[in-house]
Amino acid sequence: MADAITPRATNYPQWYLDIVKNAGLADNSDVRGCMVIKPNGYALWEKMQRALDRLFKDTGHVNAYFPLFIPMSYLAKEEEMAEGFAKECAVVTHYRLKAEKGKKLDVDPEARLEEPLIIRPTSETIIWKTYKNWVQSYRDLPLLINQWCNVVRWEMRTRLFLRTAEFLWQEGHTAHATAKEAEEEAHRILMDCYRRFAEEWMAMPVLTGPKSEGQKFPGAVYTLCIEAMMQDGKALQAGTSHFLGQNFAKAFDVTFKNEQNKEEFAWATSWGVSTRLIGGLIMTHSDDNGLVVPPRLAPLHVVICPLGRNDTERKPCIEAAEKLAKELRDLPRDEFFGYEPITVKIDTMYDRQPGFRYAEYEVRGVPVRVEIGPKDIEKGACAVARRDVPGKDGKQFGVTLAGAAAHIAQLLRDIQQALFERAKAFRDSRIVTANTLDEFRALFPVEREDETSTEPLKFVYAHWDGTRETEDRVQKEFKATIRVLPFDGPKEPGTCIFTGQPSARQVVFARAY
Amino acid sequence: MADAITPRATNYPQWYLDIVKNAGLADNSDVRGCMVIKPNGYALWEKMQRALDRLFKDTGHVNAYFPLFIPMSYLAKEEEMAEGFAKECAVVTHYRLKAEKGKKLDVDPEARLEEPLIIRPTSETIIWKTYKNWVQSYRDLPLLINQWCNVVRWEMRTRLFLRTAEFLWQEGHTAHATAKEAEEEAHRILMDCYRRFAEEWMAMPVLTGPKSEGQKFPGAVYTLCIEAMMQDGKALQAGTSHFLGQNFAKAFDVTFKNEQNKEEFAWATSWGVSTRLIGGLIMTHSDDNGLVVPPRLAPLHVVICPLGRNDTERKPCIEAAEKLAKELRDLPRDEFFGYEPITVKIDTMYDRQPGFRYAEYEVRGVPVRVEIGPKDIEKGACAVARRDVPGKDGKQFGVTLAGAAAHIAQLLRDIQQALFERAKAFRDSRIVTANTLDEFRALFPVEREDETSTEPLKFVYAHWDGTRETEDRVQKEFKATIRVLPFDGPKEPGTCIFTGQPSARQVVFARAY
Repeated sequence: MADAITPRATNYPQWYLDIVKNAGLADNSDVRGCMVIKPNGYALWEKMQRALDRLFKDTGHVNAYFPLFIPMSYLAKEEEMAEGFAKECAVVTHYRLKAEKGKKLDVDPEARLEEPLIIRPTSETIIWKTYKNWVQSYRDLPLLINQWCNVVRWEMRTRLFLRTAEFLWQEGHTAHATAKEAEEEAHRILMDCYRRFAEEWMAMPVLTGPKSEGQKFPGAVYTLCIEAMMQDGKALQAGTSHFLGQNFAKAFDVTFKNEQNKEEFAWATSWGVSTRLIGGLIMTHSDDNGLVVPPRLAPLHVVICPLGRNDTERKPCIEAAEKLAKELRDLPRDEFFGYEPITVKIDTMYDRQPGFRYAEYEVRGVPVRVEIGPKDIEKGACAVARRDVPGKDGKQFGVTLAGAAAHIAQLLRDIQQALFERAKAFRDSRIVTANTLDEFRALFPVEREDETSTEPLKFVYAHWDGTRETEDRVQKEFKATIRVLPFDGPKEPGTCIFTGQPSARQVVFARAY
Repeated sequence: MADAITPRATNYPQWYLDIVKNAGLADNSDVRGCMVIKPNGYALWEKMQRALDRLFKDTGHVNAYFPLFIPMSYLAKEEEMAEGFAKECAVVTHYRLKAEKGKKLDVDPEARLEEPLIIRPTSETIIWKTYKNWVQSYRDLPLLINQWCNVVRWEMRTRLFLRTAEFLWQEGHTAHATAKEAEEEAHRILMDCYRRFAEEWMAMPVLTGPKSEGQKFPGAVYTLCIEAMMQDGKALQAGTSHFLGQNFAKAFDVTFKNEQNKEEFAWATSWGVSTRLIGGLIMTHSDDNGLVVPPRLAPLHVVICPLGRNDTERKPCIEAAEKLAKELRDLPRDEFFGYEPITVKIDTMYDRQPGFRYAEYEVRGVPVRVEIGPKDIEKGACAVARRDVPGKDGKQFGVTLAGAAAHIAQLLRDIQQALFERAKAFRDSRIVTANTLDEFRALFPVEREDETSTEPLKFVYAHWDGTRETEDRVQKEFKATIRVLPFDGPKEPGTCIFTGQPSARQVVFARAY
């Protein structure tokens, strides 16, 4: 049986780690800061990849693959990027070990690289170096390329999925003939891919908009983001889309002949989401019983538990389970489930108590559980329990076996919708406005520092004078940062609550992962 | 227009590189030995991944992800593996750069790692180190885990796809309670996954069987392989499946309590195929006009070229093309196409000559091209050209538009079958037996060294005394290696043609990539 899960109200960070562990999602590895993504966790990532990849392709993007290694001199070419990533780079300096019988395996000092290679923390530099060879004319543009890969940022404080030295992600890198087209691309990715994926697949509502100058990506002109609220009221930056202007084209001399036959620098975007999304998924929906997964991302949709005390009782239950499983798997494939069959498992672990069996699937977040006992068989019925509503309220008895497949297919859609609405209601009820510094201070109490308080934090709209200085001061004093300048937030000017200076608009402050 | 492709008969290695370049599959990068997989090449890899992943999952495997970095001491734990890979390891020694204003970006000497990290050349060590925590009882076994990732082997001589410093692959790593079960797994992967994938998806016939001792994987008890013949008669090792015995369980102390409650070491397999398969695909089917892709792996199945000299002529052709494209895309999804729609592109590049347009899709290997001209419209028909039979022989006129979708869907299946049969006939006609050293010598002439001769080599069955010494001598003298001891080859004993010593059976020699 799974170990006990710390309740959220007792210790939220520990609850998170307990979920990751008990649902078999990931382990820390012996390599500092690097995680092992276990089969249950990787299955979530595969579902995410599949859905995102479809969104990218439907908006005209193709995938490619660029080298893991980036020569140090490439990083140096874009100053902001070099400064932004230099402190967390894994550096390859040698290309051979010495293995001599009887001696300890060691680095071969004679195999030193002329130029050190960086493990990519992000691939703008190597990709724009390559684009130089691919772009001559406006006819070669736009380049709409995405890459699925691993990246490394040597983080000192790591937490499974949320912040790890190595992580998996996708990074899009596009090149355009005009600034307008590139800006449209950055917005399209944010709204039509990332926002849609977060809300329609992850059932995770997000605020959308630009970051402040202080929070933007090194090398970007501006950064757009999707920002989600976790159940502790903290913010998770769940995806970013950057308009890079001509910075990288200039650093790597990527020019093209425009329609007037004039040489111009190309315009760029880049955008990425990572395995961090798995952390966001966990912290948006899961409860004290374990993981809760929205059906569109669930590797296993339905578990059927045939019951019975002996073989005679069990046989008809198992037969009914197999029939129902087949009916579910044979339902027409549709867009909701990514044109893949509904996945079903039949659990016949009769050497364990039913409650134990149920708990295991609850911990793993399987959206629907079906129980078929001897008495159900007599009535031609079964019981159907939904994971998102634990306990009796979520369990429906007497669902006819004949109609169960259709019922469950609809229930999976209902659960998807219900999870989104619940998460949205939670978030919307915790977005407030601070009109004074005192109000602000009350919303970000210092005693939250130990992270074990039980009351969720809030997203706080407040007027800010627009300066980096004030932003830094707020971060230092309240551990709160500007998360986003939401596209659909209030736009009225006012007075900065921190400095009394004029403010162009309110922005959203929160503590963040 | 694409550059000219060197004919195979003129210079086979150059032909290969011309195909890779002209079909837009890959580029060399500035990072030594690392390639950029371009969108057309990566699309092939995605199709391969999808099909292989399905085969792995249908045989009970799940995916996971393990760290890129392997502490040097892990590699040292398995002696054969350390020796086998030490000479080609990329080594991370530092975790930070120094970025000071006005100074050159450089490695920060104060950020030296206590223990160097190797970029994984293969992951047995880090995975078995992890398995130690996952395996306690026979109930935890088997572990049937696969990983899709990048690996690095610092090769000195590289060739796009076939041998690169970084490549993409999958590596399966399984743990079992008994030797028998592990050996069955190694065979199942070879025969039910790799052989099937090679023959049924890649249309590439393969020999299957164990490698000789001299050619086995470092750390394996034995290595099974699929071995394919390229159009120049050279062998390509296309996939390997290793029975590792208890070597890694012992190196990392992975024991379990068996059903008798006795502590035992676990039994292991590992197996992998890589982006090298793309090289194999190219060299099995392509011709002097460009790439040829078997329909089951083709990212684009059908291109439709509506014709006409002016808008009036073009309009009905375009309408017919759109109708046919929709019919093709709407065909029921089935297993042959991986439950994905048939992909269709309509080409309306009227500013180019039809011949130019056709050539472009020929170079890229699109299996079927449809031409719809004004005269076709009058007859309610179209012309359908198959890529695997270039020129007039492969073009069928007067295919009725009403029946074209069904016709093309069947034609794609026919092409898949025809490609396999053609490749198999080619290979089978070039497998011979050498009964004497003179015969052997004539089959591996030294003047082949420049690799530009036009006559394809052969796979040669010959008796061999079973010693590593003889194997090494043959390799040195003839540049030919023992590729495989085929499961279904002749098994009679005889006399080694190199030493006159007794031979247990004939084995297959070839020059290899």
